[in-house]
Amino acid sequence: MVMQVRAVQYGCGPIGCSVARFAAQRSDIEIVGAVDIDQSIAGHDLAEVAGLGKKLGVNISDEADAVLSQTKPDVVFLTTVSSLKVAYPQLEKCIKAGVNVVSSCEELSYPYREEPQLSAELDKLAKANNVTVLATGINPGFIMDAWPLFMTGVCQQVKQVRAVRIQDASTRRGPFQKKIGAGCTTEEFKERVAAGTLRHVGLAESIAMIAGGLGWELDEITTSIEPIVAKVRVKTNFVTVESGQIAGVRQVGRGIRAEKELIILEFEASVGAPQSYDAVYITGVPNMEVTIKGGTHGDISTVAMIVNSVHRVVQAPPGLVTMKDLPVVSTLGADI
Amino acid sequence: MVMQVRAVQYGCGPIGCSVARFAAQRSDIEIVGAVDIDQSIAGHDLAEVAGLGKKLGVNISDEADAVLSQTKPDVVFLTTVSSLKVAYPQLEKCIKAGVNVVSSCEELSYPYREEPQLSAELDKLAKANNVTVLATGINPGFIMDAWPLFMTGVCQQVKQVRAVRIQDASTRRGPFQKKIGAGCTTEEFKERVAAGTLRHVGLAESIAMIAGGLGWELDEITTSIEPIVAKVRVKTNFVTVESGQIAGVRQVGRGIRAEKELIILEFEASVGAPQSYDAVYITGVPNMEVTIKGGTHGDISTVAMIVNSVHRVVQAPPGLVTMKDLPVVSTLGADI
Repeated sequence: MVMQVRAVQYGCGPIGCSVARFAAQRSDIEIVGAVDIDQSIAGHDLAEVAGLGKKLGVNISDEADAVLSQTKPDVVFLTTVSSLKVAYPQLEKCIKAGVNVVSSCEELSYPYREEPQLSAELDKLAKANNVTVLATGINPGFIMDAWPLFMTGVCQQVKQVRAVRIQDASTRRGPFQKKIGAGCTTEEFKERVAAGTLRHVGLAESIAMIAGGLGWELDEITTSIEPIVAKVRVKTNFVTVESGQIAGVRQVGRGIRAEKELIILEFEASVGAPQSYDAVYITGVPNMEVTIKGGTHGDISTVAMIVNSVHRVVQAPPGLVTMKDLPVVSTLGADI
Repeated sequence: MVMQVRAVQYGCGPIGCSVARFAAQRSDIEIVGAVDIDQSIAGHDLAEVAGLGKKLGVNISDEADAVLSQTKPDVVFLTTVSSLKVAYPQLEKCIKAGVNVVSSCEELSYPYREEPQLSAELDKLAKANNVTVLATGINPGFIMDAWPLFMTGVCQQVKQVRAVRIQDASTRRGPFQKKIGAGCTTEEFKERVAAGTLRHVGLAESIAMIAGGLGWELDEITTSIEPIVAKVRVKTNFVTVESGQIAGVRQVGRGIRAEKELIILEFEASVGAPQSYDAVYITGVPNMEVTIKGGTHGDISTVAMIVNSVHRVVQAPPGLVTMKDLPVVSTLGADI
């Protein structure tokens, strides 16, 4: 009953390989091509690079245009960068080849406020080529935007939306622990923040999506970033954080109108956090408090959202869309 | 920025009056007509019957066709009955008048499995008349179907979905306490169950929606109903339940394939329940446990879902749709 979708994996880093592994398991998706500019993996079989444990017969190529024109896929999984400006030429290639896109690009998840001109150009280009473009993931794309918005549907009135994501990074990948600054000194943390290499990308986009859904025109969106300092020594499989060193990062985004904080997003990721959870708090009629016990696993769920969105994107009207514009994205039930 | 919608309230009982009160507060909705067959309220101003505290200038009429043709609304809020068969002629009137419908009719929330022929006819009629038809509410429509499905989007695999709704009815309306059997004897409970007047309608529809979203073809859907017996005396503003009398009702729905319970919905409403909550438990990759503290208020949230869906319904492609087919339904943010 489920429509078959032919997909190209564009970007074969850690997230791209995870997407390929999940997509390859799905009975409704066939991976027909793979693209990456990394010369160390070009020419290799995607299955080998992604650790699939079976042959796909799909070689990674550094020639996106050739792969798209030869394979004529229904969709591209674009998992290359967080920056919309950097992703733009890649998006353009896919769209002009007449291919739908599901991307992990954080800045593309709701780009209308931060990048109005690029958004308008993308939308126009997608419509002209009759394709749909979406960026999604667990955050941005779900936990701090689509999910809180979805929960407001049961309210007659909403005065404030607050979403909290607290993650204990102790059990996550080593690169993720490094990314959030675990084991840094305060000086190193500041340097990495200044360089833009230590941060969760997407708070401003998530705030803009919630405001867009609720019809709130915000005066401004503010974001802050600060270190979480370890109070005791924490040791993971990858890093040891001494007391007084950096355990992780805390970022807060605020959507403000008339000096009121209408939307507050609080993101924390650190090794040794007492417990992981995701929560939405709505002040309104009625008040709502919704909690995901143990939180949502960043890597597993980002990959799930990207792959699970594929049918909705293929079937959606053409243009640039966001998670609030799509019908409910569910997974495919296991074959019992 | 928000489009104005002109609405007719069709059915002016307790839910219809609540819908009218909420809709009348909204800056984006204008109530232009009202219909009810009850001769005791026909001719009265809807505002007076619904207790709006302001004039609407809209008289309740028992002539649906005349109201629809004179007011030419964008949408009808149809809040009359739970049975699709009984609602069908009313739906037909609205559709043939070229008017979109948002209904509280439980059996219409996902009617494809229980009423395949009526569903196909409705869909065809709606498409022929270029209108969209939806039934929604908190349950069915959200807590035990659209919300669990939405939460599966973060999973790579789902083996079982279980949703639990536990309600302490002590603080609800008197008619609701009566509806769930509070204060009955066991004999009376059995008689009312046999007569079909004591039950939550929608478990089968909710199970079918979840199965439809996940692509599961079920062998059967079973439902059970049993009394919750008071262990201690419970006194509310409306009823006193002695120990040993009925405090409320427990209903369980199961979606089964190959003798496995893939979907389990547990609904309990009783006076004196220790705590109210709604929860979704997903067995899969990853497992998920999501809880709404204190639960979701049945009356407030059903009305919210109906009114909040209005723009999505007006904008949707024509046909019969369900909550899993619509983009995220959020409320309108308060004017701060």
